[in-house]
Amino acid sequence: MRVGVLTGGGDCPGLNAVIRAVVRKGVQEYGYEFTGFRDGWRGPLEGDTVRLDIPAVRGILPRGGTILGSSRTNPLQAENGIRRVKENLAGLGVDSLVVIGGEDTLGVATRLSDEYGVPCVGVPKTIDNDLSATDYTFGFDTAVGIATEAIDRLHTTAESHMRVLVVEVMGRHAGWIALHSGLAGGANVILIPEQRFDIERVCDWVTSRFKASYAPIVVVAEGATPRDGEMILKDGTLDSFGHVRLSGVGEWLAKEIEKRTGKEARTTVLGHVQRGGTPSAFDRWLATRFGLHAIEAVRDGDFGTMVALRGTDIVRVPMREATARLKTVDPELYAEVGVFFG
Amino acid sequence: MRVGVLTGGGDCPGLNAVIRAVVRKGVQEYGYEFTGFRDGWRGPLEGDTVRLDIPAVRGILPRGGTILGSSRTNPLQAENGIRRVKENLAGLGVDSLVVIGGEDTLGVATRLSDEYGVPCVGVPKTIDNDLSATDYTFGFDTAVGIATEAIDRLHTTAESHMRVLVVEVMGRHAGWIALHSGLAGGANVILIPEQRFDIERVCDWVTSRFKASYAPIVVVAEGATPRDGEMILKDGTLDSFGHVRLSGVGEWLAKEIEKRTGKEARTTVLGHVQRGGTPSAFDRWLATRFGLHAIEAVRDGDFGTMVALRGTDIVRVPMREATARLKTVDPELYAEVGVFFG
Amino acid sequence: MRVGVLTGGGDCPGLNAVIRAVVRKGVQEYGYEFTGFRDGWRGPLEGDTVRLDIPAVRGILPRGGTILGSSRTNPLQAENGIRRVKENLAGLGVDSLVVIGGEDTLGVATRLSDEYGVPCVGVPKTIDNDLSATDYTFGFDTAVGIATEAIDRLHTTAESHMRVLVVEVMGRHAGWIALHSGLAGGANVILIPEQRFDIERVCDWVTSRFKASYAPIVVVAEGATPRDGEMILKDGTLDSFGHVRLSGVGEWLAKEIEKRTGKEARTTVLGHVQRGGTPSAFDRWLATRFGLHAIEAVRDGDFGTMVALRGTDIVRVPMREATARLKTVDPELYAEVGVFFG
Amino acid sequence: MRVGVLTGGGDCPGLNAVIRAVVRKGVQEYGYEFTGFRDGWRGPLEGDTVRLDIPAVRGILPRGGTILGSSRTNPLQAENGIRRVKENLAGLGVDSLVVIGGEDTLGVATRLSDEYGVPCVGVPKTIDNDLSATDYTFGFDTAVGIATEAIDRLHTTAESHMRVLVVEVMGRHAGWIALHSGLAGGANVILIPEQRFDIERVCDWVTSRFKASYAPIVVVAEGATPRDGEMILKDGTLDSFGHVRLSGVGEWLAKEIEKRTGKEARTTVLGHVQRGGTPSAFDRWLATRFGLHAIEAVRDGDFGTMVALRGTDIVRVPMREATARLKTVDPELYAEVGVFFG
Repeated sequence: MRVGVLTGGGDCPGLNAVIRAVVRKGVQEYGYEFTGFRDGWRGPLEGDTVRLDIPAVRGILPRGGTILGSSRTNPLQAENGIRRVKENLAGLGVDSLVVIGGEDTLGVATRLSDEYGVPCVGVPKTIDNDLSATDYTFGFDTAVGIATEAIDRLHTTAESHMRVLVVEVMGRHAGWIALHSGLAGGANVILIPEQRFDIERVCDWVTSRFKASYAPIVVVAEGATPRDGEMILKDGTLDSFGHVRLSGVGEWLAKEIEKRTGKEARTTVLGHVQRGGTPSAFDRWLATRFGLHAIEAVRDGDFGTMVALRGTDIVRVPMREATARLKTVDPELYAEVGVFFG
Repeated sequence: MRVGVLTGGGDCPGLNAVIRAVVRKGVQEYGYEFTGFRDGWRGPLEGDTVRLDIPAVRGILPRGGTILGSSRTNPLQAENGIRRVKENLAGLGVDSLVVIGGEDTLGVATRLSDEYGVPCVGVPKTIDNDLSATDYTFGFDTAVGIATEAIDRLHTTAESHMRVLVVEVMGRHAGWIALHSGLAGGANVILIPEQRFDIERVCDWVTSRFKASYAPIVVVAEGATPRDGEMILKDGTLDSFGHVRLSGVGEWLAKEIEKRTGKEARTTVLGHVQRGGTPSAFDRWLATRFGLHAIEAVRDGDFGTMVALRGTDIVRVPMREATARLKTVDPELYAEVGVFFG
Repeated sequence: MRVGVLTGGGDCPGLNAVIRAVVRKGVQEYGYEFTGFRDGWRGPLEGDTVRLDIPAVRGILPRGGTILGSSRTNPLQAENGIRRVKENLAGLGVDSLVVIGGEDTLGVATRLSDEYGVPCVGVPKTIDNDLSATDYTFGFDTAVGIATEAIDRLHTTAESHMRVLVVEVMGRHAGWIALHSGLAGGANVILIPEQRFDIERVCDWVTSRFKASYAPIVVVAEGATPRDGEMILKDGTLDSFGHVRLSGVGEWLAKEIEKRTGKEARTTVLGHVQRGGTPSAFDRWLATRFGLHAIEAVRDGDFGTMVALRGTDIVRVPMREATARLKTVDPELYAEVGVFFG
Repeated sequence: MRVGVLTGGGDCPGLNAVIRAVVRKGVQEYGYEFTGFRDGWRGPLEGDTVRLDIPAVRGILPRGGTILGSSRTNPLQAENGIRRVKENLAGLGVDSLVVIGGEDTLGVATRLSDEYGVPCVGVPKTIDNDLSATDYTFGFDTAVGIATEAIDRLHTTAESHMRVLVVEVMGRHAGWIALHSGLAGGANVILIPEQRFDIERVCDWVTSRFKASYAPIVVVAEGATPRDGEMILKDGTLDSFGHVRLSGVGEWLAKEIEKRTGKEARTTVLGHVQRGGTPSAFDRWLATRFGLHAIEAVRDGDFGTMVALRGTDIVRVPMREATARLKTVDPELYAEVGVFFG
C-alpha cells in the first residue's frame, strides 16, 4: 500500500504534526509506504513529489508551516485536471490520499473521492476554526494564544497613555479568533463578522471604560463590518463581500473612534504572525491525533471521510457534509461574553 | 442576593478568571453583591472575608493564583464546623456559595448543599484534569504548555550530549499531563500512573532511540510506578500508596537507565512551575465561561450542581456524581500514542 | 528629603522597575519620602500627584507601562510653565526630581536643572536605543525579543508559501531594533534609516534567496527610505522628514518587490506590541540598576546628571551631553551583518 | 584555507549561531572551506568529522544545542593525544581551528596554540557567565530569562498558599544566574556561592516578608553554602568542594526554613531546562558577532586569541589570560541588590 499525502491552503501550525503522525503510524503499524506531494494539489497535478518516510518526519513536530509546501492550485479548474491527477497517482503507484486542508482543498478531495474514484481521507485545517463538523481545528489554539499575548502587551500601552488600542485579528467570515483572544485578553469590545456592529455603541463602551479610569482595548476580526455600510464608503472602500478593504476595518475603527470620542486611538494589525511558528501543545496534540486517526481510516478503507474532534474523541464524518457549512459564532455565545464589554 | 465565593485546594491558573466572571456577571446582570472568603473553607469557618466587587476583580484575568487565597481546611473535620459555617454565612447575609475547587473542596460543598441546606454551586478545579464529569478542567492546558516547552528545551541538551533526559511532571493518580506534554513534546517514552511500567521495556525504547542516532526523552508522571515493586525497595523507598518516594520516580528512572543501558541519564523535576503564572488563553476562556455559567446556576437556584465542559458547551451536572470518580487515562488512548515510543 | 518621580514620552517596558528601585532604595536606605507625578511633566505643571511609597511599588517589577502615566507635555512651552512647576514643587515640599524619559523629557530636565535651579537626576528611556551616552537603554531588549519571535514565526509562513515576508519594526531615526531583531531572526535583508536602500539591490537579495530554494524575510525599520526618493512619490507619499508615510515603508516595499521580482510579498507591521507588556529579564535588571543609581545620585547631590550603562557598570554622565547626539547604527556594524543578506 | 570548528563542554544556547556565523563569513567573504569536528576535542583526536558548509548551517540560528555535538574529552590526557590531533588535522588538511568552549575546552586550545603550534582562535562559552575576559557570554541571557520566567510563575503559587518557595538555579562557582534572575524575578532572598549565607538571616528575611503579608521567594545558586558548614552534615552531605550534595542546597534550605520559621516551604530545581532550547535574541546577536569576529581573527592569523565582549564592541584578548581567572560576583554588586531582600 502506498499512500500520498498533501497539504493545501494557507499554512497553519500543526500541519507537520499531522504529517508525522500519519507516516509514523502508517509505516510502523501498517507497513505502508508514502509519497509526499508538493504544494497541495499542484503535486498530484504535476507529479511533483518528495520522499516521505520516518527520517523525513523526524524533528518536525514542533515546527510550524508544512514540509510539503502548500498552494491554492485546484485540479478541478485545470485543463484535464482530474485525468492528470489520476494518471500521476497511477504512475506513482499511489493507492490513496490523505488530504490535509480547508474548505477548498477538502472540497476537491470530496469530489475526487465521491465522483472520480480517488480514495481520499480528509484532515480539516483552518486557523479560523470555522468548520462545522469538528469542535476545533488545529492551528486555532496557537493563533488565539499569539493574539492573546499581543493583547496582554497592548494593555500596558493603553493604560500608560490612556489611549484606545484597536487590535485587528484574523477571521474573514467567522469571529472565533476575535472572540477567544478578546475574551482571554480582557478586551473591552469584541467585534465579529457575524454581527454588524454599531459604531455609536462601540464608542459608548469606549467612553464608559475611560469613565472608570481605564483605557479600552477593542478587538476586531478583519471581516467585521459596521451596521451602516454606506457610512464607510466615505472613508474607505467596501470590497465585493461588503467588507471594508484598503486600510482595513482596524484603521477605520481607530479613526472613527478618535473622531467621535475625542480620545487618541491606535491600531495594531496582527497579520501573519498569527499563523506561523511552533504550534501550541494543544494543537500538537490535536494535529497528532488527527493524523493517527486519518491513517487508521485509510487502513479501514473508510474513504470520503474526514477526521473530526468531538469532545475528547476523534471521530470520522462524511467529508461531503463536513465542508458544506461554515461554523460561525452563535449569537448566544456572543451575548454571553458581552458582559465584559465597556 | 449576596453570594459568597471561595477557592480551595492547590492553586491553579484560571482561578482568578473564574472569580472575575462570577462577579462581573453577578453584579452587572443580576445586581448581586458578593463576599469573598479567604483561604478556601477556612474563610466561612472563621468568618474571614474580603471585599469582592467590580474594582476588586479588575486586572486579575491574566494573573495566576487566587486573590482569595487557598487552603485545605475541611469544615467537616473541624469542631462544630458545619454549625460555625452556617452561622457565619447567616451573620454575613450570604445566601449561597460559589465553590471553586477540586475533589476535596467540592466534596465539602456537596455535603453542605445536599445535607445541610447551604446552597452551593461548584466549579471544578484540578490541574491534573482527573475529574470525570468534564472534558477538561482549567489549569491543565497551562500546565501542559509549560511542560511541553520544557521538553522542547531538553531535546537540544539530550541531542548535544547524547544523553537520556528524564522529565518528571505532575500527576499523582492520573497521567494526563505526562501524556499530553509527552506527546506534544515528542517524548520517546511516556510513563503514567495508570499502567505500571516495565523498566526493561523502557530501556529497550531508550536503546532503540540511540540506535537511530537520537537521544531519548522520557516523560514520567510523578505517580508512575514500575511493574516489579520490590525492585525499587533496593534503591529507593515506597510510600504508603506504593509510590516511589524520597528521590522521586524521575531520579530512580535515571539511575536505573544508566545502570542498565550504560548511557548517561539526567532528571529534571518540573514541580511547582507547572501550576503557577499566567493562564493560557484556553484556560482563561474555559475558566471565564465556567464562572459565567456558575453564577447563572445560582440565579436559577440550581444548587448542588457543578459546571462542566462537554465539547464546546458548558453544562451543569450534579456535584455528587461529578466528584465521585477519578478520570484516568484510557488504556486505548495510551496505546494510541505508543506508536511514538522508542 | 522629598523626591518627586515622573515618567515622560512613549511607554517602555522597565519604567515600573525604575520607579520601584528608586523608591525601595530611597525609603529603606536613605529614609526619603516620595511624590509621584502623573503623566510626565503634566504632573509638576498642574500639581497632579499620586502616592508613592513601598506598598505602591509592590508587584510592579514585571509589569509593562508606567504606574505614573505618561504624556508629551512640555512645561517650557506652557504659559508660565517654569514658574508653575517651581511653585508646585515648592508647595508639595519636593526637593528634587528623578526624571525618567527620552530626549524631550530629559531635555526639559536638563534646562530645569542647569538653568532654573530645579535639581534633577535623569534616567534614559528610549525603546529605540538611540541615546549616545549609554550602551543600552531598557525596553530595547524587550522590543528586540518580541520582534525576533515574530520573525521566527514568519519564517514558516514564508517557507510554506514561498513568499517574501516584509516585517516593519520600530525605529524612526535609528535602525537598532531592525538590526538586532533582523540578525537574531535570521532575516535576509535588513533596512535601516541610517542608509538609504537601493530597491534594485533588495530585489537581487530576494531573488538570490529564492534561487537557493528558500523564502526571504525582509526586516525594515519604519524610518528606512529608498535611495531614489522621487520613485516613491508615484506610489506613496513622503512626509516632511522625507519618510514614506500613509501606507508605511513596509507596504511600499512589498508592492515594489512583487512588481519587480514577480514573487508574492506580504507585510506585517509589528507596531505597539513591541513596546508593551512585561519587560525581559535583561531590561528588568538594567532598569532596576538605573533606579538604584539614580537615587544614589540624588543622595550625592549630583544633579544635572543621568545614569548610563557602560559595559557592566552604571555610571553618571552630564545630562546635557547625554541628550545632545543621536546614537545611530555605525556603517561598519551594518556592513558586518551584511554577510547574511541574500 | 581549511578551518576546523569544534564545540566542547556543556551545551549552551547560541553554539549553533556561532558555527553559522563562522561558516557564512568564512565561505562568503574569505572563500574558506570548513571541517566540523564531532563532540568537542574527541573529533580531532579520533578524526571524527562532519561536513560543514553553507547548506549545513542553514536554519540552525534559532536552534539550541550544537549540530557538532559536544563532550568533555581532553586530548592532553589521552595517550599520544597531541600527536594524534596534529596528525588528524594534517591528514584532513585543516590549517587552523575555531574552538568554542569553556574553561577546559579553551584551556586545551591555549596549550595547543601556544605550545604545540596548532593555530587556534577561541570563542568563550559558559552559561554561568563566569569568564573574566568578557562582559557577557552567550547562553547566559537565555538561562536568566528562563529562570526569571519560572520565578514569575512561582510567585503566584507562593502568594496563593502563603508558602516559601525556594528556587535552585545553576551556578556552581559563580552566582550570576541567581543574581540576575533573582533580581529580575523580584526574589526576596538571593544566595550565591561567593558569599556563604547565614541561615538565621535568611529566616529573618523570610519572616519579615510574611509580616508584610507577602510570601517569599528564595533564589539560590546550586553552589551556595551556609556559613556554618558543620550544620549541614547532620542533614545532608558535603561534596569534596564543600558543597551540599545529594538533595541539593535548595532542598536543604526548604527544610531548614520550615524548621526554623514554622512556615511551609517548597523547592523547585530548575536544572537542565536553563541550558536548552532556542537562544534569546540577545544571545543570538552576541553569538553571531562572536562567530564573525572569530573567523576574522583566523583571517588575520591572530591565533592564541579569544573573542570577547566589551561594552558593545567585540575585541580580541589573549586566550591564556582569558581563561586564567574566574569572574565572580563583586561583593559591592551583591550589596547593591540587597535592598530588595526581605
